[in-house]
Order: sequence, then C-alpha cells, then structure tokens
Amino acid sequence: MAQWGTDTRIITGIGDDCAVLSVPAGHEVLVTTDFSLEGVHFRREWHPPEVVGHRCLARGLSDIAAMGGEAIATFLSLALPPALRQSWVTRFVNGLLKLAKKYHVALAGGDVAQSPSGVLADIVLLGSVPRGKAISRSGARPGDQIYVTGELGGSAAALDELFSRRNKKLRGADYPRHFFSTPRVEVGRFLREKKLASAMIDTSDGLSTDLAHICEESGVGALLQEVAIPRARVGLKKEPVELAFAIHGGEDYELLFTADPSRRIPLSIRGVPVTEIGRITRGRRIVLADFRGRSAILQPQGWEHFRQRAQP
Amino acid sequence: MAQWGTDTRIITGIGDDCAVLSVPAGHEVLVTTDFSLEGVHFRREWHPPEVVGHRCLARGLSDIAAMGGEAIATFLSLALPPALRQSWVTRFVNGLLKLAKKYHVALAGGDVAQSPSGVLADIVLLGSVPRGKAISRSGARPGDQIYVTGELGGSAAALDELFSRRNKKLRGADYPRHFFSTPRVEVGRFLREKKLASAMIDTSDGLSTDLAHICEESGVGALLQEVAIPRARVGLKKEPVELAFAIHGGEDYELLFTADPSRRIPLSIRGVPVTEIGRITRGRRIVLADFRGRSAILQPQGWEHFRQRAQP
Repeated sequence: MAQWGTDTRIITGIGDDCAVLSVPAGHEVLVTTDFSLEGVHFRREWHPPEVVGHRCLARGLSDIAAMGGEAIATFLSLALPPALRQSWVTRFVNGLLKLAKKYHVALAGGDVAQSPSGVLADIVLLGSVPRGKAISRSGARPGDQIYVTGELGGSAAALDELFSRRNKKLRGADYPRHFFSTPRVEVGRFLREKKLASAMIDTSDGLSTDLAHICEESGVGALLQEVAIPRARVGLKKEPVELAFAIHGGEDYELLFTADPSRRIPLSIRGVPVTEIGRITRGRRIVLADFRGRSAILQPQGWEHFRQRAQP
Repeated sequence: MAQWGTDTRIITGIGDDCAVLSVPAGHEVLVTTDFSLEGVHFRREWHPPEVVGHRCLARGLSDIAAMGGEAIATFLSLALPPALRQSWVTRFVNGLLKLAKKYHVALAGGDVAQSPSGVLADIVLLGSVPRGKAISRSGARPGDQIYVTGELGGSAAALDELFSRRNKKLRGADYPRHFFSTPRVEVGRFLREKKLASAMIDTSDGLSTDLAHICEESGVGALLQEVAIPRARVGLKKEPVELAFAIHGGEDYELLFTADPSRRIPLSIRGVPVTEIGRITRGRRIVLADFRGRSAILQPQGWEHFRQRAQP
C-alpha cells in the first residue's frame, strides 16, 4: 500500500500475521465493526460497486464520528463469489479507498475468502480518542437539548424509490445521503474538543431508534418537535421526504446529540447544518409533538435495511 | 458482559457506537481479522457448534501469538441464516467464550446480521505488544535455525479422514489440533520476552506456504530436514500422519520461527515441544532434504481449506 507509506501510525500493514499500529500517547482505542452483505445491505443491481465500497467504510467512519474520535486504520474482510468480475472488485475497492484517503484512514489489513453466496464484506474501523473523552450514549440529562446534523430520511426515501421503480437505477446525485453519505467525523471531533455534547450517536438505525438508544443508556426520555425535524430534500425537484422517512428511516449517518442548555451550539459546524429538534425529559418515553402541539408517544421502529420489504 | 466487568482494558464494551479500549502505556496495537464461512472453513455436519466457535477465535489468537503479542479484546461479526436454531448459536458462542476466558480476551463488540446463505463469522482480535518488539516475518537471516512448535499435519489428516469417511463424524479427541487447537500465545510471548526469535509466523496455511512467507519477507531461502519435521499422531492408534500433510497441510496453528544460532532454544517452552527443522540460507529457494540426504526444491502448495476438494 504505497500511498500509505508516510503514515507513521501504521508500523506494519498488510503482509504479516497482524497489523501493528501506534496510538497517540494519552489516547484510548476505538473499534467498530460492520457487515455489508449483498441482498441485506446492498444490491448489485441498485448500487454501483464504488457506492458499495463507499458505504462499507462510511458506516464505520460514522461510528468513529459518533464517539468524537479520529480514524486511524481500516481492515476489510471480503468474501467474493467465484463468478464475480474482477472489474467489480476493483471498482468496489476504489470507492472504499477514495473515501479512506479523504479521511486519512489506512487500509491496514483484512482477509479474502471465497463466498458461498454473494459479496460479503465486513469492515473494521480502528480509531482513537483522548483518554476519557469519548462521547458515549449514556450522558444525556433531563433538560438537555437534542440536536441533529444535516437532514434525515434521504436514505430511506431512496430505498422506497428503488422499490417502487422495480429496480430501475437512481441517480446518486439525487439521493446523496444514500449513495455517497459523508460521515460527520469533523463535526464529532469539534463537539468533543469544545466539550459541547453530553451524549451522541449516529443515525444508522433511524431517529426514533437511535434516540431510544440514547434514552435507554442515559435513563431518560425525550420530547421531539415534529416541525423542527430537518427532512431531506431528494430527487430531481429536491422535495422534502415524507415525515415517516425522517423519523424512522435509517442509514443517514447524521449525528444525533444532546447538550446542556448552557452550551451554545452553532447553527452550522464545519459547514454542516445543526438543528435543535427537542428536549431530554425525566420520563422514559419518547414523545412527538406535532405542529398543533398535540403529542403522541413515538415507538422506535428499528431499521431492517431493505431485507423485510425486499421479500414480499 | 458481566464476566468481563473487572477488565480495566475495556472502557466501553457492547452498547455504544464503538468499543473503547485502553492499551498499556508504551505498547503498540495488534489487529488481525479472519473469516470463518460455512462451506469454506467449516461444515455444520462435520463441526459441532462449539468447535466452530473455538476455531473462529483460535485463528485470531494464533495471529497474535505469531507477533509475540497479548490479546486484549475480540469482536465478532456474525451473519446467521433465518432457519438456524438458537441452540446452535448458543453453543457456538459458548465455544468461543470458553476459549476467550482461558486467554483473558473480552468479547467487546461486533455486528449481527441475517445471512443470505449459511453461517458467516468474521472475527477481529485486538492485542498489544511493547513498542518495537513485535516479531515480524521479515527478520530471518542466513544461518538462522528454523523451529516449529508442537506437531504438524494433524488438521489436514482430520479433513482427509472426514472426506474419505464421506461425512461421518470424527472424535475430536483423536484430532485435537483440528477440533480444538490451542493457540501458542504463551510460547510467542516467551520468545518475544527472551528475544529469541528473529522472525515468526503461525502455520495457518501449512509449513511450505508459511515458510515461503518468511523467506519472501526476509529475502532469504531455507533448507528443511524431512526427518526432523514433527508429524502429528492422530486417530485411535495415534499414528503419524503422512509427510505431505505435515509439509503442506494448513490450520495447525503452530508457531514457525527462526533464531540466530547463538540463541539457545529450549526443547520445550511452556510445556510445548519445540523442534529444529532446518536452516535459513542465502538463496531464495526452499529445499527439502530427505533421510538419504537427497534434496529437492519444495514448492509451497498453499492451503485452500477444503473448498477445492469438497467440490469434485
């Protein structure tokens, strides 16, 4: 991996029994691992190989971002069906490496095997954060304000469109959060450095589910303002997505965080809009208030990618 | 993971976006990742679930051992077919956790997904080694002696028996290196602490292939003495395996290392026999000398698990 030769954090990369990495003094190590399985997380007929590679790595980078950390290295385990064209693999790896380069992440190892069925990728991201400074899910307190970066629902809207069009391809530019989501690593780092966030998670499973994770780990509840939730604008006409996509749709990889009301949160961090969408409450429930002020309990619906919808 | 609650190296385990780990001061981080795929690395009809779980983790621990490192934590990505019984998963995890406990390795995270076909496991092992002390594959010098721990060929002989018996089950006790191999972590650490080894690798791909890796990375050749190669004793009668299994068979997870002739290598380290099997040479070739002193070039044959043989 010549392009990574100047990275002093990688002592030994591909070509030994283990990779050997150095972690900055006074830092703890962050580790996250995510499957990307054909038919579960992507479809070859819908997602160009570069997109699959990009999404693989973006998922892991978003987890690092959600801790306020910095990425060091990635490891790719890849199982390929025997009939797969080499050009698909090359384009997949190119998509992954392009994003890796942008975030100064070295591809430091992995495993290759023959797949019994479809393309199977497992990505490991290794990063670091100053000791004791990782932003966990468990620090939200009653009265904290709830914020989200960017827009929500764009990825779910893309999947809905892919299903309704019966596999016709979409233009990536019309659904950027689905095809080429930008992990919010710089925003996460800013929030950690400025000590602004009390709890944080990335919206991989959707707002309702990910906010429930924060509430559960913190032992609190939440009140969300429906009108404040930033809906993604998608398609040729850049129309806002349905509310349900913004509330329950996963794979947007935005950051959802809480902050003490005394903290001044910028309207935009590193060029990414930040929107206040509600408050942390004492109860254990998550309540959604609509534009008339009527409120209802919000049940997290989880996010099962497109598996369940894909098999009618 | 209550049983790991006292492990101060795991700051945050399962239940956040990333695991947060502390690495001992002055240590570098070791990372290795290995697929275990049904139909490629194991078969459910041959390998009880505990064995599959054990073998998953043993592969990674053996990589840590081969660097002279110590394991800290493991991450398991597991994709399961919908029809799989819960009891299989429980027994699989039990097999993995039993070995993890023995080596003080915490299960600190991972991912679970639905599998499109068969059980798919990807295991990540994270360990550490004092800065600059990892034993690489590239340190072998002409004149160094070549050693191997334990016995070779036991795993290949088990697979051969499984094929020839047409899927009848084998007793694990008759083929311990195949069913419950013991990673040589203590031996690797001893060699590193005593500064005995100039290069090291584990025999996951077989002696001929793994020695070729050392030779390639070190820019040297080797002369092996056929009679010195310790052949595994397997089956009810504990008969030595065929020479070809000992030379080319993979998945024994022994340590293969080189040492300067001035270093005194014990005949047994931490209860594991250590055998001198040859010398590092200046040429780039690997030569095998038989008991009559006749020699022939040894071609590494690689190790494709049982995939190629499994499909006639």
